Amino acid sequence: MPAGLWITFEGGDGVGKTTQARLLHEWIEAAGRAVVRTREPGGTEVGALIRDIVLHHRGRDGSGHIAPRAEALLYAADRAHHVASVVRPALERGDVVIQDRYLDSSVAYQGAGRVLDAREVRDLSMWATDGALPHLTVLLDLDPAAARARLDAEDKPFDRLESEKDDFHRRVRNAFLALASAEPERFLVLDASLPVDELAADIRTRVRALL
Amino acid sequence: MPAGLWITFEGGDGVGKTTQARLLHEWIEAAGRAVVRTREPGGTEVGALIRDIVLHHRGRDGSGHIAPRAEALLYAADRAHHVASVVRPALERGDVVIQDRYLDSSVAYQGAGRVLDAREVRDLSMWATDGALPHLTVLLDLDPAAARARLDAEDKPFDRLESEKDDFHRRVRNAFLALASAEPERFLVLDASLPVDELAADIRTRVRALL
Repeated sequence: MPAGLWITFEGGDGVGKTTQARLLHEWIEAAGRAVVRTREPGGTEVGALIRDIVLHHRGRDGSGHIAPRAEALLYAADRAHHVASVVRPALERGDVVIQDRYLDSSVAYQGAGRVLDAREVRDLSMWATDGALPHLTVLLDLDPAAARARLDAEDKPFDRLESEKDDFHRRVRNAFLALASAEPERFLVLDASLPVDELAADIRTRVRALL
Repeated sequence: MPAGLWITFEGGDGVGKTTQARLLHEWIEAAGRAVVRTREPGGTEVGALIRDIVLHHRGRDGSGHIAPRAEALLYAADRAHHVASVVRPALERGDVVIQDRYLDSSVAYQGAGRVLDAREVRDLSMWATDGALPHLTVLLDLDPAAARARLDAEDKPFDRLESEKDDFHRRVRNAFLALASAEPERFLVLDASLPVDELAADIRTRVRALL
């Protein structure tokens, strides 16, 4: 990976990824560095079309069924295009890329939560991006019941993945924690039930060392 | 693969795949067997959405650029969904599936013609479909200049792939022929410059032995 700095935020829905990404964005820009804020799925125009298919396709019979391997491949296609057309060019310019969800979400959601093998999902992503990994991944860890309560409080509608069973969300959380254990250098794991300002300070401390 | 019979048609644009698929369809149905006619990309509702992205996306800048690995992954996603939701159920019912383009088109167009490794493109498709291969693949082989003349005569507009350089089409043709040489049991290679009826008779002879 070239001159810039690439930071991804991971964790279940409702853990506060967007809030922390925004606060970090503001702090880095105030320090004079150019920032690219992006996300997967859907961080490009092509990706937005792909995201529509995965999350909102209902089909003539209303079932919205997409074969599991097809879903994994669609996410990988979004990723391939996003990394090639947004992330790599930004890093080559020396910018800081702050991204909502990446590889680890695919492995946690599709691998651990669905019918596919986690190793295969990871291999697919690594092929898609020619092996691109972020410099830092912030995992906001939260009990799924607490995350669900936050989303309910905000009265946010659930999309197809969000509306799946609680047991699924517990498996996803455990998968994220296992990924962090396997790559302690890349991950910063934080307790997302802590106050927003405290979390932001912890993230800044780690990012300061990388800038 | 289960009880049915799966036949794919391969070859460049303008070689007559649609005509021969139609004639074979009529002949098999007249013999009393149920036939499912399908194609890739786009043989399902999800696939049609994917096909639109790959073939017709232009983007804000009008370049229509999709990263090569993203394109390969989109085709693989279409294939995964198509095989899982159309081909396998039809074969389980004992039907005959007649399909325009499959795995070999991906390898020939993306692998040989573009920047990706043919082996990687094949591995990707095999993962997408959990290793599904047709019982018979009819390769309609034709010099690209002759195929282009046919399309010009029909006044058909070229899509993004069709409008690429002649040299590209020669590499694709050679890639198809190499694939056929590597799997002579699966392939029936025919000279697509022969009369339509003669080609149809050759195909029927081979299919009769498989029914």
